Amino acid sequence: MKIEVLLQKETEWLKGTGPEADIVLSTRVRLARNLKGKNFTRRASEEQRRLILSQLIAAAESSEHLKNSLVVELEKVSELDRQFLQERRLISRELSPRFQGAVIVSEREMVSLSVNEEDHLRLQVLQSGFRLRECWRLVDRVDSELGKKLEYEFSPVLGFLTACPTNVGTGMRASVMVHLPALVLNKVIGQILHAVGKLGLTVRGVYGEGTEVEGNLFQISNQVTLGKSEEEIIGNLEKIIKKIIARERDSRKVLLEGKSPRLEDRIYRARGILRNARLISSQETINLLSGLRMGVDLGILSGISRGSINQLFIHSQPAHLQKLAGKSLSAEERDLLRAELIRNKLSSNGDNQ
Amino acid sequence: MKIEVLLQKETEWLKGTGPEADIVLSTRVRLARNLKGKNFTRRASEEQRRLILSQLIAAAESSEHLKNSLVVELEKVSELDRQFLQERRLISRELSPRFQGAVIVSEREMVSLSVNEEDHLRLQVLQSGFRLRECWRLVDRVDSELGKKLEYEFSPVLGFLTACPTNVGTGMRASVMVHLPALVLNKVIGQILHAVGKLGLTVRGVYGEGTEVEGNLFQISNQVTLGKSEEEIIGNLEKIIKKIIARERDSRKVLLEGKSPRLEDRIYRARGILRNARLISSQETINLLSGLRMGVDLGILSGISRGSINQLFIHSQPAHLQKLAGKSLSAEERDLLRAELIRNKLSSNGDNQ
Repeated sequence: MKIEVLLQKETEWLKGTGPEADIVLSTRVRLARNLKGKNFTRRASEEQRRLILSQLIAAAESSEHLKNSLVVELEKVSELDRQFLQERRLISRELSPRFQGAVIVSEREMVSLSVNEEDHLRLQVLQSGFRLRECWRLVDRVDSELGKKLEYEFSPVLGFLTACPTNVGTGMRASVMVHLPALVLNKVIGQILHAVGKLGLTVRGVYGEGTEVEGNLFQISNQVTLGKSEEEIIGNLEKIIKKIIARERDSRKVLLEGKSPRLEDRIYRARGILRNARLISSQETINLLSGLRMGVDLGILSGISRGSINQLFIHSQPAHLQKLAGKSLSAEERDLLRAELIRNKLSSNGDNQ
Repeated sequence: MKIEVLLQKETEWLKGTGPEADIVLSTRVRLARNLKGKNFTRRASEEQRRLILSQLIAAAESSEHLKNSLVVELEKVSELDRQFLQERRLISRELSPRFQGAVIVSEREMVSLSVNEEDHLRLQVLQSGFRLRECWRLVDRVDSELGKKLEYEFSPVLGFLTACPTNVGTGMRASVMVHLPALVLNKVIGQILHAVGKLGLTVRGVYGEGTEVEGNLFQISNQVTLGKSEEEIIGNLEKIIKKIIARERDSRKVLLEGKSPRLEDRIYRARGILRNARLISSQETINLLSGLRMGVDLGILSGISRGSINQLFIHSQPAHLQKLAGKSLSAEERDLLRAELIRNKLSSNGDNQ
């Protein structure tokens, strides 16, 4: 099975459905595990890592959720393919061909398993909407299936042992991707993110490192895994995200009641530019897509599905464009193809302003 | 007849038709005249000016082209009305209620006569397209008609006498409004305007004083009237404008052959923003309308008429918006109404991107 197959199938977490889908794009829960009696990836020999890979492929085959998966060994694919998998959130920057990194991806990309990352095994479940408990249940089930074939490093005192101490314990990291345009517009986002940080969560922009967050998209995740149960991690994150959702919803209500022409202007201009541009950068795209989503979520725009917008966030990224084109593209060629892709996607959806 | 009547009738010079209408928006020829034996406007008594006004109204009545005209005495209308007439190019900034200024406007605004401007009488003919000779013929005919009823200050040596020496002689000023987006885009406009200046013509931006020209619209007119015949003035201007038209056309051809995505992007974005914005400033409007016109003129956009675009250049101006609304509007209210006007105008014209 080739990596291109991913472009043809529907991706579960991009569907734009599920609870609170007007604010929460997707939920992810991942577990870090290491095989017993083997050095951590970076300290293992190449031979050991190859052995780990074959053990994990075999274990995955035995899992109901991972059998017949796409297996991608990074050594065997191009740098572009690797970037493509990163854009798709199937692998992290840490997964490297130098360490015989690989990823095993289930159909519709709901479950995936990174091999020879920082830890031997990183099991991820990714779904659309706000579904912490569902993701947790599923990742737990797959973990149990794999556990029948594999023996993990585990300390009765510390829990699962991991290469980096921040993951020791449950080895669980849960994260939720939220779209918070109204909180950003009302300029209260800074205060909220500050409070969230104090509650032991990490927030980062999905696009744009540092202070500048593009597209009003934030990823919020638990920081600590040690000394907490999975239930505590999920419960705490869930509680805080619910509050953020409520705040965003309130802000949206205020915006809607204000019937601010400035808000409408931003939304409609986003639509006008996306449907007409012939050249468009990745950064402008992300910001305009955020405006478009806000328009759909506020009920101002109709005829455009959330799923289309979510998909465009990913498909308009550089490696995706090049995979779609089937060749390497210059920055200007990408800007051209990106504009075309967006027009095609957005104009097949009903009205055509 | 009230001034609002102008909003309901088709304006000849905005039709977007006539020779070279893809580059020349309109042609204007005006004559400056003063009545014999009376002080120039600024030096005349109020009584004299009122007499001049009634004489000119009577003379206009006798003209086939001016009878049943709209007569607007600036003393009797608001500042907004005065601004409205300026935007419509029916009066200049020089026409003032303090000097019993008035304007007599023919149907469809092709012929108009300013009274008690710098000179007692400024007769103007304004038509769409490149029609110097037609305008000249018409202004000459109306001048002859009026001359049957009026006696002008005329020197056998100098010609017609005027308040400002630059108008002495024929009293004729001819000007052509041209849209030169390709010359601007190709960055040769500066060199061309410089050359035009050396040939005794004056060039100024239609919008935006000084260095920054908005909307790529230029007004080119003869500078000197003394010591030249009307034929020389018209012939010289015609020759130079023809060269500029040829240069602009060459530049457009080069742009089209280059199939530059940057050019298309600019055009389509202009359309997208104009058809979607909910708030838009006068300045942004002018620049985007220029982009839109370029798209129509290059055959890239269809379904939008030049006439609509020409009309929007004028109707989106502040006083026009307020006359349309029938009340005074704040800047933000104007931006809102302007966006609405543009959307209505551009979306009733076929396809709806």
